[in-house]
Amino acid sequence: MGSPNYTFQGWLGKGPDSVEGKMVWEQYEPKTWSESDVDIKITHCGICGSDIHTLRSGWGPTLYPCCVGHEIVGHAVRVGKDVKKDIKVGDRVGIGAQNSSCLRPDCEECAAGMENHCRRMVGTYNGKYPDGSKSYGGYADYARAPSHFVFKIPDAIPSAEAAPMLCGGITVYSPLKKNGCGPGKKVGIVGIGGLGHFGLLFAKALGADKVVAISRTSAKKEDAKKMGADDFIATDEDKKWAKTHARSLDLIVSTVSSPKMPLMDYLSLLRTNGQFIQVGAPEDPIPAFSAFALIGKGVKIGGSMIGAPHEIDEMLQLAAEKGVKPWIQERPLKDANQAVVDMDAGKARYRICLVNEAHAKL
Amino acid sequence: MGSPNYTFQGWLGKGPDSVEGKMVWEQYEPKTWSESDVDIKITHCGICGSDIHTLRSGWGPTLYPCCVGHEIVGHAVRVGKDVKKDIKVGDRVGIGAQNSSCLRPDCEECAAGMENHCRRMVGTYNGKYPDGSKSYGGYADYARAPSHFVFKIPDAIPSAEAAPMLCGGITVYSPLKKNGCGPGKKVGIVGIGGLGHFGLLFAKALGADKVVAISRTSAKKEDAKKMGADDFIATDEDKKWAKTHARSLDLIVSTVSSPKMPLMDYLSLLRTNGQFIQVGAPEDPIPAFSAFALIGKGVKIGGSMIGAPHEIDEMLQLAAEKGVKPWIQERPLKDANQAVVDMDAGKARYRICLVNEAHAKL
Repeated sequence: MGSPNYTFQGWLGKGPDSVEGKMVWEQYEPKTWSESDVDIKITHCGICGSDIHTLRSGWGPTLYPCCVGHEIVGHAVRVGKDVKKDIKVGDRVGIGAQNSSCLRPDCEECAAGMENHCRRMVGTYNGKYPDGSKSYGGYADYARAPSHFVFKIPDAIPSAEAAPMLCGGITVYSPLKKNGCGPGKKVGIVGIGGLGHFGLLFAKALGADKVVAISRTSAKKEDAKKMGADDFIATDEDKKWAKTHARSLDLIVSTVSSPKMPLMDYLSLLRTNGQFIQVGAPEDPIPAFSAFALIGKGVKIGGSMIGAPHEIDEMLQLAAEKGVKPWIQERPLKDANQAVVDMDAGKARYRICLVNEAHAKL
Repeated sequence: MGSPNYTFQGWLGKGPDSVEGKMVWEQYEPKTWSESDVDIKITHCGICGSDIHTLRSGWGPTLYPCCVGHEIVGHAVRVGKDVKKDIKVGDRVGIGAQNSSCLRPDCEECAAGMENHCRRMVGTYNGKYPDGSKSYGGYADYARAPSHFVFKIPDAIPSAEAAPMLCGGITVYSPLKKNGCGPGKKVGIVGIGGLGHFGLLFAKALGADKVVAISRTSAKKEDAKKMGADDFIATDEDKKWAKTHARSLDLIVSTVSSPKMPLMDYLSLLRTNGQFIQVGAPEDPIPAFSAFALIGKGVKIGGSMIGAPHEIDEMLQLAAEKGVKPWIQERPLKDANQAVVDMDAGKARYRICLVNEAHAKL
């Protein structure tokens, strides 16, 4: 098979001001093709908080030009001859936040199914491959990724709903699953935004006995209940919340972070041996806290970062079986600049998904 | 059976200055007898850091007069008729840091075998029972405790060695065991004092592949190696220690705490999904740290407090089987005041055990 009859074009950020509506549509050179790769004709791409941080170099200098977007769904248009996964041209597939890892048998993370923690991991955008070529994301026409990080989308999940699961969904699904969310457990989700809304949906889908939404105000209370929350704590409106709900939860997944966050109060919500897991990627340090808070109840504070490929497959399967229904706002890809501005302004309810008008119907 | 033919006498602290060699030998009224209790004629009692903190009201006001000591070994001299455990008069038995918990079937901690986290737990000294009677410790002739918290000592373990296991030993054994210390795992112990020395011994006994002692200076290096440490990190003497040993450990149990402790460096020693467990009872907060340290590698920070009765039995069994040999300095009970002063001055190598001259040979 020769070169493909398509070029790679997308919305490129060229500097920190690109986040202010200044991405430009241009052609770029994708990752060097390898026979274990898959090319995808993109139909949908969710907008993730990481896109905003990266466009504005909020997590350190970005390798401009950069095409962001790592919640990608589309159709396979080229499948390398060394691809061992069951992916055929035409299949509906997706890519999450990770484009590659070393996959060496002597890599303790890859060998143990924790590819997301591989030290040689390459992000779906703003990453660099060993050969110097760069990774480009999904605000684009096409995407290329090693097949190990390309996932078949179950028929039951519409593309616009599958896309945001691939980063936003897995980021909360993974710590919920790994830390025992399921029947018999009571689970709290701090922050009801893109990640938090997936937290409620997946905690419920995993069968938790009780799911509690924890937010500053009650503005999203009705939404949270529709997403499956059995209870809602508005920390700015109920001064006694930490006492009223003390020792009521087995697991808390926190999707927000601020040096002002009431960490000790969150920990007071945990039962003995409970766990508090921070996800997402805050820019602020966790506030200082007393070790007594951990010792007295034997609780743990941990972190979690996206999820491994096998967990993504598992999540998609669960979402298909349980009919997990994310709350999505579709926007045409041509309006990507405005959509990014809206996302940055906190207007997403609860995830914006860009639809490539050339490849899919809005 | 009528009243016993013995009275309860011991070294009583009567104020914060009791820690400075001013405990006085006096009689006191023990816990009200219950038919599920056991009275013990004390032969040995280890000196624990908690004794020092409590004598000087370092953890809040102490209920003086207070007889400290919660690493108690002796012989059962009275066994209540409701005792269901296999304990007979004459048996060699011990008591650890916990004297009682509610043991109600509706207590989620007691029902789940986490009696040490029961909210109604009563410490072996400085505690108060629901009927108002107080708990008194082991720098004494006799001790009384509910049988659920009285342990038979395996024949293979000498009393002076069994005693310090009952608090110092279990405090590190429990988090090591619960967090997977064993074959295939590499474990670090921060702080080589009374607790830390047990950490090295039990990590080794549990079969960890590698046990690393982490201390500020190399003063205790030779001792640590004799206790089973395969490697030694002196953090004040090796500026590159955090880099040299990065990602080398699965589990760290920290027996020290200070706002100045290099927590981020300790975390850098952990492999992906590693855990850092704080034990003992520091008075200082854990320093602030970045959530990225937890997220990037999926690590956890936790706490652990003594251990549950079933874990104490398990630990004693392991110690007997593997010949775990704590480093003990025996001192006569009559010299308890000086022994406390020496312990407070950091002179224990690595645990001081008081021997009741009236009931045992030195």
